Amino acid sequence: MPDNSCLTHLSCWKTGKQYDADRLINVSDAGKPLRVEYDLRGVAETLDRDILATRPRNLWAWRELLPLPFDIECPTLGEGGTPLLEAERLGRELGLRRLYVKDEAVNPTGSFKARGMAVAVAMAKYLGAPALAVPSAGNAGGALAAYAARVGLAAHIFMPQDVPAANRLECELAGAHVTLVDGLITDCAARVRAGCAEHGWFDLSTLKEPYRVEGKKTMGLEIARQLDWNLPDVIIYPTGGGTGLVGMHKAFAELEAIGWLDAQQAKRPRFVAVQAEGCCPIVSAFAAGADEAVEHENAHTVAAGLRVPKAIGDFIMLDILRSTNGTAIAVSDAEMIRAARELSAATGVCACPEGGACLAALRKLRDSGWVRDSDEVVLFNTGSGLKYAEAFAGGTT
Amino acid sequence: MPDNSCLTHLSCWKTGKQYDADRLINVSDAGKPLRVEYDLRGVAETLDRDILATRPRNLWAWRELLPLPFDIECPTLGEGGTPLLEAERLGRELGLRRLYVKDEAVNPTGSFKARGMAVAVAMAKYLGAPALAVPSAGNAGGALAAYAARVGLAAHIFMPQDVPAANRLECELAGAHVTLVDGLITDCAARVRAGCAEHGWFDLSTLKEPYRVEGKKTMGLEIARQLDWNLPDVIIYPTGGGTGLVGMHKAFAELEAIGWLDAQQAKRPRFVAVQAEGCCPIVSAFAAGADEAVEHENAHTVAAGLRVPKAIGDFIMLDILRSTNGTAIAVSDAEMIRAARELSAATGVCACPEGGACLAALRKLRDSGWVRDSDEVVLFNTGSGLKYAEAFAGGTT
Repeated sequence: MPDNSCLTHLSCWKTGKQYDADRLINVSDAGKPLRVEYDLRGVAETLDRDILATRPRNLWAWRELLPLPFDIECPTLGEGGTPLLEAERLGRELGLRRLYVKDEAVNPTGSFKARGMAVAVAMAKYLGAPALAVPSAGNAGGALAAYAARVGLAAHIFMPQDVPAANRLECELAGAHVTLVDGLITDCAARVRAGCAEHGWFDLSTLKEPYRVEGKKTMGLEIARQLDWNLPDVIIYPTGGGTGLVGMHKAFAELEAIGWLDAQQAKRPRFVAVQAEGCCPIVSAFAAGADEAVEHENAHTVAAGLRVPKAIGDFIMLDILRSTNGTAIAVSDAEMIRAARELSAATGVCACPEGGACLAALRKLRDSGWVRDSDEVVLFNTGSGLKYAEAFAGGTT
Repeated sequence: MPDNSCLTHLSCWKTGKQYDADRLINVSDAGKPLRVEYDLRGVAETLDRDILATRPRNLWAWRELLPLPFDIECPTLGEGGTPLLEAERLGRELGLRRLYVKDEAVNPTGSFKARGMAVAVAMAKYLGAPALAVPSAGNAGGALAAYAARVGLAAHIFMPQDVPAANRLECELAGAHVTLVDGLITDCAARVRAGCAEHGWFDLSTLKEPYRVEGKKTMGLEIARQLDWNLPDVIIYPTGGGTGLVGMHKAFAELEAIGWLDAQQAKRPRFVAVQAEGCCPIVSAFAAGADEAVEHENAHTVAAGLRVPKAIGDFIMLDILRSTNGTAIAVSDAEMIRAARELSAATGVCACPEGGACLAALRKLRDSGWVRDSDEVVLFNTGSGLKYAEAFAGGTT
């Protein structure tokens, strides 16, 4: 267990079996994600809102709820602290009490992936990883490349040949070793596993190490703070690997545990998982009442972040959706591209297809009455639309 | 004069003639830029560092040094508050006491243009502009489009046909009216003037209205704050229209006037204006000892932000370079592209060609001894390299 932090240990998200956090580790013996556990009483004694207010507004402001030891310098590029923008015109049009957009495009590397990689790369460096690797069909590669460059570690990134040009460019600019694979993201993942076995690289794939979730959970911590420690009624989130959804739910539990949410405010937002019609394993599993998802065959969507046919954290997501009275919904590529343009023009954010998917989902949920006019809603723009030139060029309807 | 702000009036940057700030205005009777003047005694009485520390870290934290009346809501997308990153490895390699990168890519719309447009669009809206217009060969158009969308005004953007695809895409996503012009940026400017005359649009061209400089000056305010109210020895800045250079110099004067810089710290950084060999009117004028620049014929460079053959604020820039014992230096496109890759790989920022130009200039100034090993240096990455796919594809050496 690292000294000098509030981290106590890791536990298997499925079985609860405990693991020490003093070395590099990927998944549990059961092959499931590992959850980072903290001494929350210690956090409550160390951190208060006045201290928080004095800190830089990047995600490391939440140092006590993050795993990096206090005496290790945070390798920041300015990640986190993104705006929660009220979308007045759009909210009025949709007849909502209040509508916010959490704009994750205003992050280093232009997406929310920066949060997870900032923390995971920091921990990997601290625990002695000699080099890092991920498969990526979108924004994760660029985020790894940037933070690896920041800490001076080599990054090995395996991408499908049809990866958007912007995602490849950002990896190459940051000096990462990029391999284009003639195949799918699953083929890329196989190449990463082989490279890790052969060369000792550390695998930073989604939920296949414990710390990316910890970076992502800061989205939830920030929303609570930005809403003055009240949680919204509904959070609409584009769900591929699901790290953000899992992380935010964990964040709210931790805030409640340290006493920062009012008793009346201990309600959880209803989480909405948004997926693409061409790749919606969580939507299918939710509708079927299943505890785990089945791999989506022939997955296809212009939203690279949603092209995840089978997520290792599926069972965690499904549990969160049910326990919060949430739901899961799929939208078409045409709907998400059209809605991304609407979201941009109505608010000024540069919406990505995944952000558009959230707005398209919100419209459907308003039409069905699932989202009520009394609801306060937060939807996510997870990255910059500028990284999706191909999708916007081809996907217009 | 707007009530309820510390703004007092405008003055011609050339002649000193005063103008009221209570209506939309472009340039002075002499056709020169207008400077925003404040009641700095009033600012000093209203604002202190403790108050500043409690505010959100976007540029509106500096409300008393900005022109928007206090009772008008700030139309924010989260602009400003960008990181000042220490570049340890690069600084060591260059033998510098300390090297920082101010990473403006972490702004809404991915560039420093967001700062100027946030403030200028807010003021144009407040003063009753019915619609907004700019010519743009790069990032300014996208920034205008985003803030116009934020406040609900129409934006008319005229771009040369060879504008980078990303710059055009961001304008279109935000719902702006984009016209591609078969010609140069000067032809685009003529179209803007014609449209303003015919339709009553308000022209937001660089330094042709008073408030973009005020947004840009917050880069200087932030650097001073991030260095704990000490100024660096050298600031290396890519100079097209020069708004940032002019704004930062103004910022330091205002901070000194309100007593926030130590007497010993009242020294000004030596400003370095970096231009492209294919478009370097300020470099030529500086070398010739001239007070104004001559239009650069056949201007060409992959750095869209530096493709400014004649800047209306040339005389202000030249005065700043001389009064701070600064200099002006040109680098080739090949040098800036190579250096952008180096900057990205060494620090994790996603460097644009203009950011690369600053590093290339710094190397030359180290070689010549102009930058000393005792110097603390800040260089600017003014935007995200992701918006320059064409430059990186074609410009590699």
